[in-house]
Amino acid sequence: MSKKAKIRKLEKKLAKFKARLKAAETHRFPVSPLAPKDGFPHLPVIGGARFSAVKAGVRYPGRVDVMLVELDPGTAVAGAFTRSATRSAPVRDCQAKIGSDSVRGAAFIVNSGNSNAFTGANGERSVQAITAEVARITGVAENRVYSASTGVIGEPLPFERITTKIGELHGTMAPDAIELAARAIMTTDTYPKGAGAEFKVGGKTVRIAGIAKGSGMIAPDMATMLVYIFTDAEVEQSLLQRILSELTDETFNNITVDSDTSTSDTLLIAATGASGVRITEDATAFRTALKRVMLELAHQVVRDGEGATKFVEIRVTGAASDTDARTHAMAIANSPLVKTALAGEDPNWGRVVMAVGKSGAEADRDRLSIHFGDILVASQGWVSPAYREDEGAAYMKNDELVIAVDLGLGKGSATVWTCDLTHGYIEINADYRS
Amino acid sequence: MSKKAKIRKLEKKLAKFKARLKAAETHRFPVSPLAPKDGFPHLPVIGGARFSAVKAGVRYPGRVDVMLVELDPGTAVAGAFTRSATRSAPVRDCQAKIGSDSVRGAAFIVNSGNSNAFTGANGERSVQAITAEVARITGVAENRVYSASTGVIGEPLPFERITTKIGELHGTMAPDAIELAARAIMTTDTYPKGAGAEFKVGGKTVRIAGIAKGSGMIAPDMATMLVYIFTDAEVEQSLLQRILSELTDETFNNITVDSDTSTSDTLLIAATGASGVRITEDATAFRTALKRVMLELAHQVVRDGEGATKFVEIRVTGAASDTDARTHAMAIANSPLVKTALAGEDPNWGRVVMAVGKSGAEADRDRLSIHFGDILVASQGWVSPAYREDEGAAYMKNDELVIAVDLGLGKGSATVWTCDLTHGYIEINADYRS
Repeated sequence: MSKKAKIRKLEKKLAKFKARLKAAETHRFPVSPLAPKDGFPHLPVIGGARFSAVKAGVRYPGRVDVMLVELDPGTAVAGAFTRSATRSAPVRDCQAKIGSDSVRGAAFIVNSGNSNAFTGANGERSVQAITAEVARITGVAENRVYSASTGVIGEPLPFERITTKIGELHGTMAPDAIELAARAIMTTDTYPKGAGAEFKVGGKTVRIAGIAKGSGMIAPDMATMLVYIFTDAEVEQSLLQRILSELTDETFNNITVDSDTSTSDTLLIAATGASGVRITEDATAFRTALKRVMLELAHQVVRDGEGATKFVEIRVTGAASDTDARTHAMAIANSPLVKTALAGEDPNWGRVVMAVGKSGAEADRDRLSIHFGDILVASQGWVSPAYREDEGAAYMKNDELVIAVDLGLGKGSATVWTCDLTHGYIEINADYRS
Repeated sequence: MSKKAKIRKLEKKLAKFKARLKAAETHRFPVSPLAPKDGFPHLPVIGGARFSAVKAGVRYPGRVDVMLVELDPGTAVAGAFTRSATRSAPVRDCQAKIGSDSVRGAAFIVNSGNSNAFTGANGERSVQAITAEVARITGVAENRVYSASTGVIGEPLPFERITTKIGELHGTMAPDAIELAARAIMTTDTYPKGAGAEFKVGGKTVRIAGIAKGSGMIAPDMATMLVYIFTDAEVEQSLLQRILSELTDETFNNITVDSDTSTSDTLLIAATGASGVRITEDATAFRTALKRVMLELAHQVVRDGEGATKFVEIRVTGAASDTDARTHAMAIANSPLVKTALAGEDPNWGRVVMAVGKSGAEADRDRLSIHFGDILVASQGWVSPAYREDEGAAYMKNDELVIAVDLGLGKGSATVWTCDLTHGYIEINADYRS
């Protein structure tokens, strides 16, 4: 082969390699059809909170993958975490720190690309190295630096790629860079997730802004839900924790994509107090606004569920207790047969009956009624006489569906949100190898 | 249009219709790649039991869809049933009858094509009509006629299509027609399922033969597992029930295709006593042989799991208790992420860790070890130093896989069997409408 031919061959090879690299660096999956139509929302700026993000190349080059949040002295921080028995090193570290008091502010440091989960003693060392460096550069006490990691599991976190970037992160903080932070924590998410709210108390405005990531799982990564919420309200830490825990039960704990639980799920809220509005016990306006933000973020996670084409609300009423209602609702939401029927736009109410029957909670076939949207499908143990299959089939073509089940037993109720189970889910989780 | 043209058009239409009908009547899905290589086994003939099957056209024409079994006077019958709160009318009827004593023999009548589930009071009437007619024609006491139905749910069972065939069924009984019976109870099964065993006691031979159906679910039907086992051993009813319940926990209760539970699951065993061998309390040989038959049938159901391409044994050891071990094993077996990784031949041990973590049973990340077959993948909270990803990937290409997890906590152990989650499952359950 002549040198010229050899060069041409190599150049061709290089071009191919470049194209492959570009494909690898960009998203492999198109934006979810259920994504909010208007893109990332315009979020209120929270006094006392500053954001930055950098490209640290933790795993993938060419994208922001580490975010830092600095919070002013006096900020209260509360959190909710995965209940997994095999939870990750950062989660254990955050749990140990939450509730500690300090007036020297707080910081959140999060990377995507590597979850630092199931990494043995090495995992703890990485967390320690990162949080110590954040403390050193920002001046925040180390027991107030909360970290999280999301991405591939079982691989040692190359923490020096993060620690060497803390200075740059600290030098580029901005109060209005929250969207960049939302992008830095994405893994297989097909869009960045944000939600905000404002309300007035005696002429003063209280602001809430939150970001989230999560979409199920992707080979070879474990899905993780990370949520960070900021408010300029002034809330005592124990009250903030109580409100957060209650609202988590009503929002994030009522969503499910595939019934699998991440080892890294982390939800943190920071109340900076910059608004000068102090929240007391019966802070209905604060709870309402915060719940709205949390619910919107929770819904956005479901809307980005892997392979999802339907956003589905499951409402259960008339159960013997609220706990029973939630058990039924989750059994319906997690049933592979219900989820595949939704994907097939099949008004298969029999599978809903099956899911209720297997849930283990109290049910009586002859008192059960089922609605798809406003359509009464089944009642008193049998298909409703007025039900027409073509009406049910037409309803199932909607992107957003409501399945309502009344047990006819008591006053227990629950609502959960889920998505369908499609070829897309199998493609994302089975067809692509690490 | 000329008459000639019209006739040609109609003939064309008819040909198309015939082709569609033929397609509808034959199996839509090819035989599972995991089906037993030698086809239906040669089963021992059980004295005191006779079988027949007919084409009753309950739903689909052109195939046997009702089976009848007649059992000689003195036959003991024991059963295990779905725990679903919305179980079907035939299941409720069987449960009410089991344990009743009678010397007038017994009969099993089973149809496919319609499950008579969620059919209100109509369901009970259908069961009553069928069992009364079987009693009238066979002379078996009505409280010893056990029925089952499997197929589409929520539609009234056209029971007269069955009752009018009882005479024909009764007139064609044969001791060696068990394979025909196995075929009559198939719905979406891709092959008929049978297993047998023999053992000797003091020069006399005891025989066991069983058949089963079940493969998960198929639109719009609910999957159902039906199992009928026959033996010529002589076993007192309460002992037979106790042995069956114990062995069900070790066999059928340890399999899962998709975590969804049918409203119709029924397992019946009939002991005719024709061998003259009386089984007493510590009948080890009988238990061993019966367990082998039950396990083989249970495995065949998993091997016919909808869309299955892998038969997977999950072994959990070192758990705090047997119950904990089973909880972990089922969490792994039912995890959509583990199942899709298996489908993708991805040695994704991280998802196994995730499933253990979410199961709710006791686990300690740093004591956990995981084997794929003989390959040590992870130990002490991290990937094993000797593990090579290409070895794991090569192992995953096998049709039959073993995933072994040791918790390192105690002596609890459990083994369950499952299959992978593939595009085939989605196709069967989402892509085809009723």
